[in-house]
Formats: sequence, C-alpha cells, structure tokens
Amino acid sequence: MPLSETALPFDDIRNLVKSIPGPDEEALQTTRARDTQLTKPAGSLGKLEQIAEWLAAWSGKAPPKVTRPLVAIFATAHGVADKGVSAFPSAVNRQMVDNFAAGGAAINQICRAHDLGLKVFDLAVDMPTPSITEEDALDEANCAATMAYGMEALAGGIDLVCLGEMGIGNTTVAAAVLNGLFGGSAEDWIGRGTGVDDDGLARKRDAVAAAVARLNGEKDPLEVLRKVGGREIAAMAGLIIAARLQRVPVIVDGFVTTAAAAVVYAMDPKGLDHCLFAHVSAETAHRRALETMGKDALLDFGMRLGEGSGAALAAGIVKAAAEMHSGMATFADAGVSEKGAG
Amino acid sequence: MPLSETALPFDDIRNLVKSIPGPDEEALQTTRARDTQLTKPAGSLGKLEQIAEWLAAWSGKAPPKVTRPLVAIFATAHGVADKGVSAFPSAVNRQMVDNFAAGGAAINQICRAHDLGLKVFDLAVDMPTPSITEEDALDEANCAATMAYGMEALAGGIDLVCLGEMGIGNTTVAAAVLNGLFGGSAEDWIGRGTGVDDDGLARKRDAVAAAVARLNGEKDPLEVLRKVGGREIAAMAGLIIAARLQRVPVIVDGFVTTAAAAVVYAMDPKGLDHCLFAHVSAETAHRRALETMGKDALLDFGMRLGEGSGAALAAGIVKAAAEMHSGMATFADAGVSEKGAG
Repeated sequence: MPLSETALPFDDIRNLVKSIPGPDEEALQTTRARDTQLTKPAGSLGKLEQIAEWLAAWSGKAPPKVTRPLVAIFATAHGVADKGVSAFPSAVNRQMVDNFAAGGAAINQICRAHDLGLKVFDLAVDMPTPSITEEDALDEANCAATMAYGMEALAGGIDLVCLGEMGIGNTTVAAAVLNGLFGGSAEDWIGRGTGVDDDGLARKRDAVAAAVARLNGEKDPLEVLRKVGGREIAAMAGLIIAARLQRVPVIVDGFVTTAAAAVVYAMDPKGLDHCLFAHVSAETAHRRALETMGKDALLDFGMRLGEGSGAALAAGIVKAAAEMHSGMATFADAGVSEKGAG
Repeated sequence: MPLSETALPFDDIRNLVKSIPGPDEEALQTTRARDTQLTKPAGSLGKLEQIAEWLAAWSGKAPPKVTRPLVAIFATAHGVADKGVSAFPSAVNRQMVDNFAAGGAAINQICRAHDLGLKVFDLAVDMPTPSITEEDALDEANCAATMAYGMEALAGGIDLVCLGEMGIGNTTVAAAVLNGLFGGSAEDWIGRGTGVDDDGLARKRDAVAAAVARLNGEKDPLEVLRKVGGREIAAMAGLIIAARLQRVPVIVDGFVTTAAAAVVYAMDPKGLDHCLFAHVSAETAHRRALETMGKDALLDFGMRLGEGSGAALAAGIVKAAAEMHSGMATFADAGVSEKGAG
C-alpha cells in the first residue's frame, strides 16, 4: 500500500483520492456499440443495460465480466454500544463472526444462492473503540492504517466487490459520521437500527448529538471519520478508494456502508462513480443520505440487516447484466430481423 | 387434464377456478415461527422474509424450497401484427424461437446466471391468429385447448414457474384484453411496445379500439380472452390456474403476462394470490394494470423485453429468499444472543 509509515498518513490518502481515474471511455463505447447489436429492441433491458455499461466503464473491460465477485464484511466493536443505543449486546459481534464462519448467517445463504465469495475481516472485534460520545474513535495513524487494511481486501483478482459490515452500535456511529459530514440535526440521521424502542432511539439521538458536538464544526472528511466513526467505516472507505484505483466496481449495501461511501464523497463527489447503491434500507436516514449525494438505489426491499445482504442480492442482478451483455447473440449472429427491417 | 372433450370447455375452466385452494396456513405459520428464530433482527430482511412466507403459503412446503425453477416461454404469432402496430416484422417470431434454442437471447443468459430451467412452447408460431381488429382470435374449443396446453407446462416436478412470452404484436393484443376486461379507452392501455413511432402508436390505438368495439360490451373474461387475445395469453392464463391447483408459485413478468394474469383475476380476484409480480415494465400501461388489480411489483428496472426476462431476474431473488430462510442458523443453533438479552 502506498501509505507512508512516517508522517501525515491522511495526506497520503488525500493524494490517492486526487489521483482517482475517470471511466474507461473506450470500454464504455465498445459496450454501448455492442448493446445496439444484441437481439432485443434497443433500450428494452433498461437498468440491466445501464449496469453493463457501468461495469465496463469502471472495470475497463468490454465486454464486462464478473468472474470473481466478493462480499467483504468488516466486523468490529463500538464503545458507544454501552450507551444503550442498540437492541442487541456487543457480545453479538463475536457470535456473528462465528456464525459467518459456520455458514449460518443470512449473507452466507445469499452468497450461496448467487455464487459470491465471502470474506470476513475481523477489525479487533473484541476490543471496542472508545465511545464517540466522549473520545475520538481512532487516532490518525490508526484510522489510516485501518483504511489501508480495507484496501487490501481486493487482493486476488476480485472483479466486483460488495461492501458489508457487522458491529453492534454502528448505525449510531454511521449517523454521527453523516451528521458530521452533511450537517442537519442528530434526529435527521438516526433510526431504529436493529430495532430499538423509543427510549433507545432517544439515547441514540443524544449519543449522535454528543459525538457531533465534539467535532466542534470540523468538516474534514477524514477527521470526521476518525473522531466519530469506527473501524469498519474506515476500512470500507479505504476499500472504495482502492477499488477505484484498481478498477474494481463496488456495490454499496445499506446505511452503514453508505456512511463509509459518504466519507469518500465528501473528499470528491466523483469518488463514488464506480459504486452502485444496492438498495434503500428501512433505516430511516438511508434515503436522506442517498438523496444528499444524488444517488439512486437499485432495490427497495425494506431491508435493514447489514452484513452486505442487500449488496449481495444486487450482485446477483449485476452478474445477470454482465451475462446478458456478453452472452447474447447479435442480430447478425442469430439471423434475426432488425427493427423496421420487415 | 380435466377438460371435457365434448362440451362447454369454458365451463370446465370456470369450474377449475371455483375449486382453487387458499394458502397452506400450516406451512405459512411454520415459516413465520421459524423466521423469528433466525439469527437476524426480526423483520430485518424485509421483502425477502415476505417472499419466503409467500413461497411457503403457496407451495405448501415449510421450509420453502426452490429446486426446479422453470421459465416457460409461450411463443406465437398475431394477425394484428400486419396492421403496422410493431416496430418488428412477424418473421422475428420464428427467428427468436431459434435464438432461444441456440442460447443467444437475453433470457438464456439470465437463466444461466440464476440457474433456471427454460422451456419454449411453440404455439403455432408460423400460423398467426386472425387479426383481432376483424375477427375473433380463437374459437372456444381452441382457446380452451390452448389453456390446457399451458397447464401442461408444469409437468416434471417444477416448483417455481416464471411466465414468459414472445409474439410480435402482442402488446397490442394484451392492451385489447386489458381494455376489454377493465374498461377505459384504448389510449389507456397502449404503449410503444418494442419501440413504435408516433404513427405506429396511433395504429395501435386504432387496432385496440376496433378490437374492443367488436366485443360489444362482452365482459366474460374467457370470452374477452378468445375474442381479442391470443394463444400465448390463453396458455399463460391456463398455466396460472393449473399452478394454483398444483401448488406451484408463479412469477409474472411484464405487460403481456400481466394481461394473462388479468383474465384469471377477472374470474376471481383471489386467483392471483399465488403470483408474484416481478417488475413494473416500461410499457406505459403496465403500471395501470397492476394498480387496477392492487398488485405491487418487486423491481422497477425500466425493462420492456418480455421473454420472461423480468420474471427470471426476480426468480434469482426468490431463490435467495428461500435459501435465506431454509439455510440460516437459529439463535439457539449458533449461540447468538437474542434482542434485549444483553
């Protein structure tokens, strides 16, 4: 990883973001041109055609292919969970990491259904960060190192990556990051997460407000991330940046992964052009976050699990879009009459 | 098939519809109860949980399984295509049937991506029905026999069926069926299909209006079907009825398959409770048809191809929902703490 061991690691990350490439215009144009020759009325596959173009533009491959898709789950623990902001105890973090390993979680089943690889990255899941209501979650060196760790998730020829996370309390942390980045009030960014009651929701609001008050108006995206964020959010933000540089398209999952994406967006609004937003979560503020960034989501299924579950569902559709584009016959191949040719 | 060879075949079909079963309450309750024990917050998988329940209720199996999913494409030809209502010539029907057989169509790629079976049923694809502007498409015996043919598509242990169709001119025919069943004007039910220009759209409106005028106020769903419908619509309507009786859940595709579903709906509004509507098509009137029947669609991808392409995409999600429910560990299995247990 191109991160200095010595000084100013955040500046190294800022420089990486300054160097992100645009779309591969040649792959995009080749894909568009082939699409017009496929045995279907032009435009008749709607979003599937747009996804094929997106894959080509951001992978640099025409025809686009998905041969090594990965769901990368970043699991960690948050001190703020002790403030009663979640319906589940922090012990669930380790239990769910074990459940992922045993193949018993929702994400394991979706990965099997859609033939996706799955890796779970343990970001000190037994060692919570300090509560963001009182202290910075990470220092600069730790935050940068965690981002670099996330960047390494792409090793091994991965050509599509789905972001996922696990961390009791992390919708509170994500709300604090989004509130810090995009303004508004704590109420604007909180929701019931895994299912807190009204009292829990009030505690969540207070925790977010306290965390954001500690920011003291700080707007630098990486500073917001390290002060009121968490390790999974840092790792996913790093992964998004690395994926752009390595030309790997990214599928963003729900509220917490969107908070990671928002850190990159706040550094450069074009920094998410290689990201597909899988779904609108049932977590209330997710829609607000997407709207703030001008992003449309593919699915609207009322999901709010995390684990990359929505991203993995969307990956099944992205795989179908790639197969559609690369596998279909052309009018000439198949001897099918073109529009108006009769 | 329980169809009399001798007299009143439509009455036999009406009797079948009168005998359709309700949901399997035991399978539904068993599935609901298991869902509360799975290692996720209750309700956090939204639509996936609803799909698992729907599969259980209408397959009678708990846990629900999808082991032999089939995309059934019904291909035929329509005399009304000669009225300039489509952007493509009728020769495309046979060419596309050949393209399906060669594996070059969009539906072939989606079936490969989601591991779905595919069968194409040739309903006299080289022998168009009379133009519905001038004559009835089918007589009663032929219509009933075509419905019975559709019923047989379920042979062989199919446990999920996606409806698909191919037939140049069939959005015009579907518009006539929907207009005949649900009223309104021809304009309400037409759209650009595979991509007709303004003149083609005007011809389409005139064709639908002429066909519906011939109905002379006839509202009997099977009479509307045979007079202004077509063979693929009849076969799919038959399949929907047979699937209910045989406890096979159905995924409806776009505008033309929805016209087939509407025939069953008009016979009994509960007759579609075992059907999932895959997507809202870009064909303008599809949304109107869904709203008229009070049906929500799973996806909204701007697709308008037919071939069962939207239904096959949805089948990937239905398979994931079944895997999710049947494969996930329970809190007890996995030793994961339940909500509020911390």
